[in-house]
Amino acid sequence: MPLSEFDIINEYFSKLTPYDESIETGIGDDAAVINTPAGKQLVICTDTLNSGVHFPEQTCASDIAYKALAVNLSDLASMAATPAWFCLNLSLPSIDAQWLTQFAASLAELANRYNVMLIGGDTTSGPLGVTITAGGYVECGKGLTRSGAQADDKVYVSGYIGDAAIALMQNENNNDETTVYLQQRLNRPEPRIALGLALIDIATTCIDISDGLIADLQHIAQASQCGMAIQEQHIPLSPQYLSCSEKQGAGLQPALTGGDDYELAFTVPVQKQPLLEKQCEQLDIVVTCIGGVVEGDNVTIFDAEQNTVTYQETGYEHFR
Amino acid sequence: MPLSEFDIINEYFSKLTPYDESIETGIGDDAAVINTPAGKQLVICTDTLNSGVHFPEQTCASDIAYKALAVNLSDLASMAATPAWFCLNLSLPSIDAQWLTQFAASLAELANRYNVMLIGGDTTSGPLGVTITAGGYVECGKGLTRSGAQADDKVYVSGYIGDAAIALMQNENNNDETTVYLQQRLNRPEPRIALGLALIDIATTCIDISDGLIADLQHIAQASQCGMAIQEQHIPLSPQYLSCSEKQGAGLQPALTGGDDYELAFTVPVQKQPLLEKQCEQLDIVVTCIGGVVEGDNVTIFDAEQNTVTYQETGYEHFR
Repeated sequence: MPLSEFDIINEYFSKLTPYDESIETGIGDDAAVINTPAGKQLVICTDTLNSGVHFPEQTCASDIAYKALAVNLSDLASMAATPAWFCLNLSLPSIDAQWLTQFAASLAELANRYNVMLIGGDTTSGPLGVTITAGGYVECGKGLTRSGAQADDKVYVSGYIGDAAIALMQNENNNDETTVYLQQRLNRPEPRIALGLALIDIATTCIDISDGLIADLQHIAQASQCGMAIQEQHIPLSPQYLSCSEKQGAGLQPALTGGDDYELAFTVPVQKQPLLEKQCEQLDIVVTCIGGVVEGDNVTIFDAEQNTVTYQETGYEHFR
Repeated sequence: MPLSEFDIINEYFSKLTPYDESIETGIGDDAAVINTPAGKQLVICTDTLNSGVHFPEQTCASDIAYKALAVNLSDLASMAATPAWFCLNLSLPSIDAQWLTQFAASLAELANRYNVMLIGGDTTSGPLGVTITAGGYVECGKGLTRSGAQADDKVYVSGYIGDAAIALMQNENNNDETTVYLQQRLNRPEPRIALGLALIDIATTCIDISDGLIADLQHIAQASQCGMAIQEQHIPLSPQYLSCSEKQGAGLQPALTGGDDYELAFTVPVQKQPLLEKQCEQLDIVVTCIGGVVEGDNVTIFDAEQNTVTYQETGYEHFR
């Protein structure tokens, strides 16, 4: 007899993550019941990944599971929240025990690394798609949003930008030279939780780069009613990006508009720069200043000669 | 130029529901930031509806929106929680302004009726599907779960059972005589929020009937480690159910195993029955005692002659 929805939950998901005593009722009832910590605000985000849209159809189950949770943890990171729990909505065209085993193992690995508990969800038949809704906590009033950037703040990004986009471009071009590093950056983005927490009382805004660097900086600019001047030559690029970009003749376009980086972009007042750099050194996280907040309402990119550079696309958009 | 994901959010969803001051950051950032009320527990549920699985492909946008939210509010009702907010994950194969207008209007109507605020979500391209994650609050320790039924408790259901299942059966048989009443019961289930709240300190367990009466009672029996004896002739059936069931020769099967009722099933100690009945009279909600909790681990159905009745299917299950 094939597995039912309830069998799948029992077999693969009911004990996926360690028990957390703040969860009074977890998987297996109509809803979860959670004790939220005193003095903290709840931070909630949700992302859907659909097969053939957010990942190629042949993507392995463990990469899908990892990314579905990681992109949500990345959203919590960008709010400076500590992740706590998540719900999993899984639509499956059919039951494949091997696929489910790999999916659950990968999800458990990442969930345990960040100490987040699976508290509920819904397992249904349908086209392959994963929706994860994640919750976390932040001390009251300490969360970072997209609004709050002030003129003369500096604009920073973490890590390298554009690796995921250039990896995707290589895949689309059926280029077999895609390196393990770039594939990892596309399929296994590391949510910047520690950095998000370190930015509390330092950054004035924060966002995770999912739509594309320019598009996401524009989200900050719009919410903060400011402009930004970004120095193209300061955007941190990995050696692997540079090598692939040269072969593809892609230049900076994937880094500026590609998205899927899940690095953080944030603004910092000038007087907090030394504190930021000290914190990041302690955490062994590389952050790079790529420009500054200016008057206006637009993100402008300058090349090394201080000429304005324009790009046709600013980031990935559904339905365009 | 076609609408982008951000245009859709701005145009249709950003101001869908009234502002709630407990929501510090709502739609439009990486995550929502919520002040949870002191002394309350957070209750979270999530349900996915996929086109062609949970609703026929030709279902109108307003019915899809209504049901996607209603089934989640029903889960909160079954926990005795007061609904507060929800996230909407919407996968759309393409942009249809008329469809989106109808979807948003219907969602807003139900959300406003129950005073729940849309706080975030994700709008993506993909096969038509809706995932809603809803949050509510319950006084600490007062939530109703599936566990806690005691031997000799009485088993109750609200409203009429089986209307949605018989409506679906009519649709599948292309029977044009489907009444407006039955269609309404299938497409527009009323979440039993007021009843759920009234059951606090009265019921020992509660569940909403989504999978099918027997299947959902079995969920309670399993979680409470008890059995149940259900009197078939006491199951409340609408005149429309009886009329259609007779024409289809369906008997009680749709009521017992069909699901999609979104009525509440719950257990009540004998000494609390007078209080329950008084409360329900005040709320003008019909509840019916259909049996009792017994020793054992199984739900047994008895006919009027007290013979055991067995049904092949106990409820709707995905992947079977």
